[in-house]
This record gives sequence, C-alpha cells and structure tokens, in this order.
Amino acid sequence: MRKERIVVALGGNALGNSPAEQLALVRETAKPLADLVERGCELVIGHGNGPQVGMLQLATDYAAGHGGGTPRMPLCECGAMTQGYIGYHLQQALGRELKARGIEKSCVSLVTQVVVDPEDPGFRNPTKPVGGFYTAGEAAALAAEKGWRFMEDAGRGYRRVVPSPKPVRIVEREAVERLVSAGGVVITVGGGGIPVVETERGLEGVAAVIDKDSACALLAHELHADRLVILTAVERVCLHYGRSDERALERVTLAECEGYLAAGEFAPGSMRPKIEACMDFLRSESDATAIIAALGHASEALAGKSGTRIVP
Amino acid sequence: MRKERIVVALGGNALGNSPAEQLALVRETAKPLADLVERGCELVIGHGNGPQVGMLQLATDYAAGHGGGTPRMPLCECGAMTQGYIGYHLQQALGRELKARGIEKSCVSLVTQVVVDPEDPGFRNPTKPVGGFYTAGEAAALAAEKGWRFMEDAGRGYRRVVPSPKPVRIVEREAVERLVSAGGVVITVGGGGIPVVETERGLEGVAAVIDKDSACALLAHELHADRLVILTAVERVCLHYGRSDERALERVTLAECEGYLAAGEFAPGSMRPKIEACMDFLRSESDATAIIAALGHASEALAGKSGTRIVP
Repeated sequence: MRKERIVVALGGNALGNSPAEQLALVRETAKPLADLVERGCELVIGHGNGPQVGMLQLATDYAAGHGGGTPRMPLCECGAMTQGYIGYHLQQALGRELKARGIEKSCVSLVTQVVVDPEDPGFRNPTKPVGGFYTAGEAAALAAEKGWRFMEDAGRGYRRVVPSPKPVRIVEREAVERLVSAGGVVITVGGGGIPVVETERGLEGVAAVIDKDSACALLAHELHADRLVILTAVERVCLHYGRSDERALERVTLAECEGYLAAGEFAPGSMRPKIEACMDFLRSESDATAIIAALGHASEALAGKSGTRIVP
Repeated sequence: MRKERIVVALGGNALGNSPAEQLALVRETAKPLADLVERGCELVIGHGNGPQVGMLQLATDYAAGHGGGTPRMPLCECGAMTQGYIGYHLQQALGRELKARGIEKSCVSLVTQVVVDPEDPGFRNPTKPVGGFYTAGEAAALAAEKGWRFMEDAGRGYRRVVPSPKPVRIVEREAVERLVSAGGVVITVGGGGIPVVETERGLEGVAAVIDKDSACALLAHELHADRLVILTAVERVCLHYGRSDERALERVTLAECEGYLAAGEFAPGSMRPKIEACMDFLRSESDATAIIAALGHASEALAGKSGTRIVP
C-alpha cells in the first residue's frame, strides 16, 4: 500500500529562543513527529525561524556596529545559517527519538532556496520587521548606506522591514522528493526557505522573508502530499476567536473558509496566513486534506480526534 | 560505463572572509567544480569553515558579552550555521555555473553530523584555537563558568582551544549516497562535520573541530569513491618546501609518503594533515587514488596534468 505523505509545518513554539532552550524544546517536538513516522507516514518537515533569524541578525549587526570587528550578515545568509542551526537540532532530536523507539531512519536537513517573483507586490510594500531596534539617526544612515527600509515600531525605535513575497518554486524539490521516496525524513524550507530570484546569471538571494506556512503549502503541492499539517499552539481553529461566543472548528470546506475570510475571521499575521496556506494547497491538490492542530496532538489530529480539518 | 566518483575537499582559499567576498569567491570556485561535473564525474564536496566559524563565534560572543542581549552560541551550533551559510553559497554558485554550461543538475547541501570517539586522545589535549582573544581575567571567568580551555597566543591574549578528534562515522552517509547515486551534486561534512558522540540517549554534540580533510577522507571511504581530491592553494606537494632544493612531487606511493613523513617532511597543520588524510583513504580503498592540487586546476589534475597523485 502506498504510504501517506505528509508535510508538517512547525511554528516558532516548537523551537526556542536560545541554543539550550531550543535543544530541549526540539526533543519534545520530536515526539509528535516520531508518532507520524510510527504511523507509517512519509514525513517532510518545514519550520519557521523568526526568533532565530532575528537573534542572529541582531548579534551580527551588534558586533559589526559596536566594535566587534565582524562583518554585517545579509538577511539571506542569516536565513541560511538558521537552516543549519535549526536543522541540526531537529534532525538530531528526531533521530534520537526514532532510535529510542527502535526505528532506524535517515533524518536530514537540506539547505533550501525558494524562488520568488521580483514583480511580487510584496516587494513594493515591505512590512515584515526583522532584527533589532535602531535610533532615527542609525536608521537613516543604514537606509542611505544599504537601501534598507524602516518603520517606527510603537515608540520603541526603528526596525528594518523587508518584503514578504509569495513562494513560487522550491529549488531543491528533486532532492527532497528523492530522499522522502526512499523512506527518509527530510527537513527543508527552513524559515520559509532562502528567497531567491531568477536572473539571467542564475539564482540570486534577495532580502525578504517568505511565510513558512505558505512555503510548506507550496512544498506539499510540489511533492503531491496527501496532507499538509500545520502544527501550532492552539488545539483548533476558532471562529470569533477570543470572544465569549468563540467556536472551535473540527471540519471546514474550502468554500466555508472563503466565507469566513470574507467575514473578517482569523487574525492577520496569525491564523489567517495558516488558513490561506491550507486553502492554496487544497486548490492545487484536490484529493488532499489540510490540518491545523496543536503540536502535541499531531497524531490524534491525523486520526481525526483533534485539530481542524480543511477539505476541498 | 560506471561513473567516476570523486570527493573533493575545498580549503579556506576557496571561500572568503565576509559574505560579499565569499559569494564572489565561490563563483570562481564553482568553475573547476563544474569542470569535474562536465567530465562526467559523480561529485561530492566537503569544505572547511575555519574563518567562517571563527567570525560567527566571535560575533555572537561579542554581542553576548558587550550588551547585545543575544545568547552565546556553542561551537557545534556555530558549525551547523556555517554549513547553512557556506552550503547556500556553494550550491547556488555551482547551480549557476552548471546552468550557464547547459547542465541542469541538483546541487544540495546536507547538514551533516560526524561521530567522534569520546575516548579519542584529542579530547585530553585540546589544541585547536577557535573564536576571538580574551584577557587573562575573561579567560579565567569563562573557564570557571563553562569549563573552556584556554591557551596564551603569542602575546596577543588568550584563545579558547578545543579538541580535534578523528572522524569515525558520517551520520548522514545514506542520504549523501542516495543523492549522488541519482546524479546530484552533494555538499556535506562542512567544516569537517558537526562533531557528535554516541550516548545511550543518542547523538550529542561536542565542542570540538574535526579536520575537514580527514572528514573528507572518511567520506570518500564510506562512499567508496574512486578519488579523493584535496584542492588547495599550491600546484603540487613539495619536498623540502620553501628551501632552495624544493622539489615538487607528481606521483608518490603510500610507502614513499610514510618515508617522507618519518623524515619530517610536510608542515604540521598545513600539508601534513592533507597527506595523512590521503594515506588514510588509500589504506581503506585499495583501488583508489588521492590527488592534492591547486583549486583552479582540478580538471587538469584529474587528467594527470597537474597536482600530486598519491597511489597505494
């Protein structure tokens, strides 16, 4: 029987804010992921990198700007570094957890580039804050020197903002497909992938951040996955979230989702992009299902006992 | 006909000291590597990370110790980050170069762990300097807090030293084998690999640095490569290096190498570990050849027109 192929998107709550915290947290995160492998699924894992890339950008900018003598690191390269950093912890933790269950399986992380369209409207309106806070003077100097865009952040100072274009193509798709088909677990599109544009000379990195759920949805489509599973901090998607008439959703159709979105449900920057990623996936893979569930209940969610199931 | 399988070890001269410099340099480095692909070889690439991991350790330590508010990063995690950073540049540059020659090929970097033996004598005698310089007081405080070992460095201050154990096993070997067998180019064991030890609970990172040539020799053995090619800054290995009676070697046997080593030829920390890595490889793969050559002449070296060929 053909194995069920699953792409899991891991949120920031599955990782931590310092190396020691992250290592401890990924060992917990590995358990629900190992449950999926034990169920006999083919597993591909995408993950966020918000706190990690922020930390790294902050540390390298700080050292460069305050006498450390080390260079500033562009955002793409910081993203690539977090793929190594988070990937290492995840592949090691999952390998340990599987081994403890008597399962020997190859768990590897691929450094992954994701093509974006230079004409994407996101490039005309950068809104995604990255890195630390600057004074007005520092911001003006960096804007002049590097062309960075800044936004004033609620009285706390100026933060650099970058575009968040839509992912178009996973550059390393073939390698992911090959490894997962052979029974391995693959970690990829870390932080949404390193954003690159196609030029006459080939691929070139751009300063941008791709939404990781959106990148995972594209990945799930390119791999023709049976399910896209977005693991997050909440048990189920809710209507009227945080209000007295809040209602958890167990199963919704694509058409119902469209209605809810039109009615202004689901918070922007939080549940809305997850719902939209699921919808994108279902529009491209008509036999598939998308699930949004709590990290700890991944296996129950696949069995239909937890989470919100989104169907075509 | 079976394709010739080659493991290439890239030295620091193939990379750069800042992100912009590295990106420019790897585009040059990609040319001789693409030559090997054009010759029809299966190609696996290992690389060093000395300047890069030093820069990253320095930047994160500096930000952590001088008010940046970001955490200190352990050496393993810094190594993992450089695998992402260098791997990204290499895979992109090689993909561009191949595409310019009309070759579409999957070029991917794998985050790679390498098992070392906790009983390795290297752990009793750490000698490899990493990161920046500290005052005697800072060094004493870090030694007490973290158990780091320090050495006074020629009047310039104190530097942390870590062990350099021998590599025992490439954890992600299976994935490398699968991708390269399928015709892809694989970048792996960056910086010699992330050093891990086997514990009852599974793999665990250790603060150490594995020599990248040694890791590439093990990799070449585990992949049963036909050739290990160590690319460096010099045209050929020399006897009496730097003296008036200097003599370049075109072809030497394993036995001759043993004699030269016993006679004190080849500088420790420079040519000696490269020669020793080649010898390790040839002892494990009796039909193979090892080559030490200049980066720009990789293809000529394979054709026997440049470099030093070491044979069993």
